[in-house]
Amino acid sequence: MADLLITSPANPRLKTLVGLRRRRQREESGVTVVEGYEELELALDAGVRPRAVYYCPELMLHPDEQLAILDRARELGAECVQVSRQPFEKTAYREGPDGFIGVVPAVGAALADLDLGHAPLVLVCQGVEKPGNLGAMLRTADAAGVAAVIAADPVTDWGNPNLVRGSKGTVFSVPVASGTSGEVLAWLRERGIPVVSTTPDTETEHTDVDYRAGAAIAVGAEKYGLSDDFLAASDERVRIPMAGVVNSLNVATAAAIVVYEAVRQRGLPG
Amino acid sequence: MADLLITSPANPRLKTLVGLRRRRQREESGVTVVEGYEELELALDAGVRPRAVYYCPELMLHPDEQLAILDRARELGAECVQVSRQPFEKTAYREGPDGFIGVVPAVGAALADLDLGHAPLVLVCQGVEKPGNLGAMLRTADAAGVAAVIAADPVTDWGNPNLVRGSKGTVFSVPVASGTSGEVLAWLRERGIPVVSTTPDTETEHTDVDYRAGAAIAVGAEKYGLSDDFLAASDERVRIPMAGVVNSLNVATAAAIVVYEAVRQRGLPG
Repeated sequence: MADLLITSPANPRLKTLVGLRRRRQREESGVTVVEGYEELELALDAGVRPRAVYYCPELMLHPDEQLAILDRARELGAECVQVSRQPFEKTAYREGPDGFIGVVPAVGAALADLDLGHAPLVLVCQGVEKPGNLGAMLRTADAAGVAAVIAADPVTDWGNPNLVRGSKGTVFSVPVASGTSGEVLAWLRERGIPVVSTTPDTETEHTDVDYRAGAAIAVGAEKYGLSDDFLAASDERVRIPMAGVVNSLNVATAAAIVVYEAVRQRGLPG
Repeated sequence: MADLLITSPANPRLKTLVGLRRRRQREESGVTVVEGYEELELALDAGVRPRAVYYCPELMLHPDEQLAILDRARELGAECVQVSRQPFEKTAYREGPDGFIGVVPAVGAALADLDLGHAPLVLVCQGVEKPGNLGAMLRTADAAGVAAVIAADPVTDWGNPNLVRGSKGTVFSVPVASGTSGEVLAWLRERGIPVVSTTPDTETEHTDVDYRAGAAIAVGAEKYGLSDDFLAASDERVRIPMAGVVNSLNVATAAAIVVYEAVRQRGLPG
């Protein structure tokens, strides 16, 4: 049976798809949009079962190879819908779309459902605003084998299109969860995971701490860093030594430096 | 004497300013544009002598405090030109301009003129394409006290507005230079600085190398990494251990991880 073909930009399904750019719409419908072949492939590799895939062969770089992903999606229960070029381009969020838009279930577990294993390495981001920074931290977490990335007092949802894109799809492979700072701190305390918070206001360097018994490395919002309450509730406060004029690293860079110090001490998992 | 006031968007000086968004125009006129109060302040702090500052008090967040920077700029020989709101907004490169645009001499020394000191730590970026990645690496270099950042086979010039912005002005505080890969490698060899190149194709981890006798840490283009020729000419080839699904860190993140391993071993300069 041939796939449904949409040729009109006014098609109500495409309007619904465009509406998913808004966080509220995503939350109400419990889904997230994944744009791009590579990102969709990563989501499938991570075990995601897409609800739908919208595709446009004219926009694909290698349609002969890439169309096969639709069979994979269909086997996982996705409806595949062909869209002609003009309405597809109008529907796509990114410029220069590559012919694939997937609709997948919302990502993010409840804190209580995260399965972390023994002495885990966790990354906590408090109030980080820029989706690109969260995406970059997910890539780092994926590379470093971090057990989970947790958003405390999140400003951005895990389904934000710029976050999904910036993460290169790792938002689907790295376990993620969200909660208030109070919930996150209580949850870490219950599990006996020491909180190692980054702040310029300490003499302890990030290389002075032992991460081998597990650690929740915490970074704060771009402008103001971690809240005083969060810092007060932390087991360790560490700073990254800085010599420079500007004296501030990008938050995703800072996270990567501390996470990889932990990897140096612990090795990669598994 | 009151400053010149421009009220027309058609003013030829503003047209010239807009033209400086193009690399070619920047290279021909030997200048770079610095947008934003914070970035301009950093440039001045780094010893930059602006040629001109265009300003618009209506757009300033704190005009009372911020206007004082014009006196500093005038003392350094800058011409200060007031521009009314509408033409200023049309001239600004970024959205939501804050009322300051400076024109400063082009940054970037000749390789031969870099003054590095003993056993320096240097960061080499071969063919890195995204201005945002170069800007992020400059922030890291500033924080880590890297002696110079060198673009080998540059795709982007140091005056690119997105680079200047992404660097938070550190492009003015960190010594930068450019050259072909051959020139850069020959220059490093002459000075006896070992080249430590990042690549996935090695068993040596970035923490296995001793950076204390000086090192040029090299990273390659976003898609393809360092060229085979560059890797072959390197003294050490190192990889960052990765566990993940995606198996690639952002180039600026990778650079930060290796640079901060060197800082762990060496301490900060000074």
